[in-house]
Amino acid sequence: MVTQEQIEDFILNGHKDYVPHVSLDCAIFGYHEQQLKLLLIKHKAVDGWCLPGGYIKRTEKLVEAAARNVKERTGVDNLFLQQFKTFGDPNRAKFEEFDEEKWGQILGVKVSRNNWLIDQTISVGFYSITDFSRTVLQPDMMSIDCEWFDINNLPALEFDHDEMVREALHTMRIQLYHYPIGYNMLPEKFTLTEIHALYETLLGKKLDISNFPKKLIALGLLIKLDEKRSIGPHRSPHLYRFDKERYDEALKNGVVLS
Amino acid sequence: MVTQEQIEDFILNGHKDYVPHVSLDCAIFGYHEQQLKLLLIKHKAVDGWCLPGGYIKRTEKLVEAAARNVKERTGVDNLFLQQFKTFGDPNRAKFEEFDEEKWGQILGVKVSRNNWLIDQTISVGFYSITDFSRTVLQPDMMSIDCEWFDINNLPALEFDHDEMVREALHTMRIQLYHYPIGYNMLPEKFTLTEIHALYETLLGKKLDISNFPKKLIALGLLIKLDEKRSIGPHRSPHLYRFDKERYDEALKNGVVLS
Repeated sequence: MVTQEQIEDFILNGHKDYVPHVSLDCAIFGYHEQQLKLLLIKHKAVDGWCLPGGYIKRTEKLVEAAARNVKERTGVDNLFLQQFKTFGDPNRAKFEEFDEEKWGQILGVKVSRNNWLIDQTISVGFYSITDFSRTVLQPDMMSIDCEWFDINNLPALEFDHDEMVREALHTMRIQLYHYPIGYNMLPEKFTLTEIHALYETLLGKKLDISNFPKKLIALGLLIKLDEKRSIGPHRSPHLYRFDKERYDEALKNGVVLS
Repeated sequence: MVTQEQIEDFILNGHKDYVPHVSLDCAIFGYHEQQLKLLLIKHKAVDGWCLPGGYIKRTEKLVEAAARNVKERTGVDNLFLQQFKTFGDPNRAKFEEFDEEKWGQILGVKVSRNNWLIDQTISVGFYSITDFSRTVLQPDMMSIDCEWFDINNLPALEFDHDEMVREALHTMRIQLYHYPIGYNMLPEKFTLTEIHALYETLLGKKLDISNFPKKLIALGLLIKLDEKRSIGPHRSPHLYRFDKERYDEALKNGVVLS
């Protein structure tokens, strides 16, 4: 439970613990049963929805700050996390529209125009992906709401977050062929039908099922097992699994573009 | 010509014109006749070599700040420029080793320990590439030297710049297959031998020449012309050119990972 005292301390003294002028924003994708969703938050004093995000503690590495944020919002640890782009533009937030009085009333503390939170920020974008059915959502101390939205039915987002989502989706869709990103969204051993559905949903398009596994096997992401799952008379599809070593490597070197 | 007054103003008041806590570092690669080089600078008050870089004006977009830096160092405009990663780690620069007296003597102005230049910085890495024979190098106002170094014979760099160079090289080498990065390093129409030499040098490895053009043509980067260059009796190799439209698209959307 966040107290009013903690909120006031963050607003008034946060610049001592966090690096000012730099934020991070996280496009957290959620998959479950052929649905792709995106996690959005509603800031207490900003109308409309945004990507979850936050600031980097002066004692933290950038990637640690992103992992902390994703964990805090979803309750899930150790997710695939990848930096996709850093956004810097003097017009990415409209400070001239900042309403001192409104913020003061809503947050219960005077936020002056030269407060560290109301100043130009360069934001580092990360994307992550999880099974949304396993998450326990938690808004941050500056937000009133935190919800999954269908990727095909997103509201218009605040600031430059629409652009961030486009870039995050674009990067995730390319990297699907380089990292076993779907690792924690399927059972350990899965059928071709299951992984095909996952990839079609994440990519947002139909994929020819006959070539699909060959490509992933050739890329070294997928391993075909000498095992079948019995799902009925005359129906026992082959099982596959991800190459876990490659996934761990990707988690560790989340920085490697491929 | 930079005056002492300008240097003092930058040191003492730069945080008013530039976004504090955020810097950028540029890995500028240079190619010419099968040699790959990297541009390094020597800061006046830091021993050893670093990547060139700088700060982002409060009125500038991030990519504009990077383009300005690359132009200022090389004299060349409109180079291929790509963000590759942002670096944030409380230990990326060792502020505890900051020598107030040394900086004061060298720069001719008192630099206090709480100066904006001596504070934690998150740095956005860009890479760029040019023909080093066409550049006119210019150190920035805080540097005494600016030189091309052979990529295979780099000195150990200051801060986290060794890691930055590794990441920049890695990204450039992947993106060579996605963007016509070599565009301004070859004549408009070139032979297979010429582009093969460029790619081998940039990739730092031997490439099978028989498959090489097929791959680039399949990727849509290279166009085989219905033209030959006569270089002697019985020697008239086919000419190729880059797909300029794709290059312009890449320059415009320098943000797109592929």
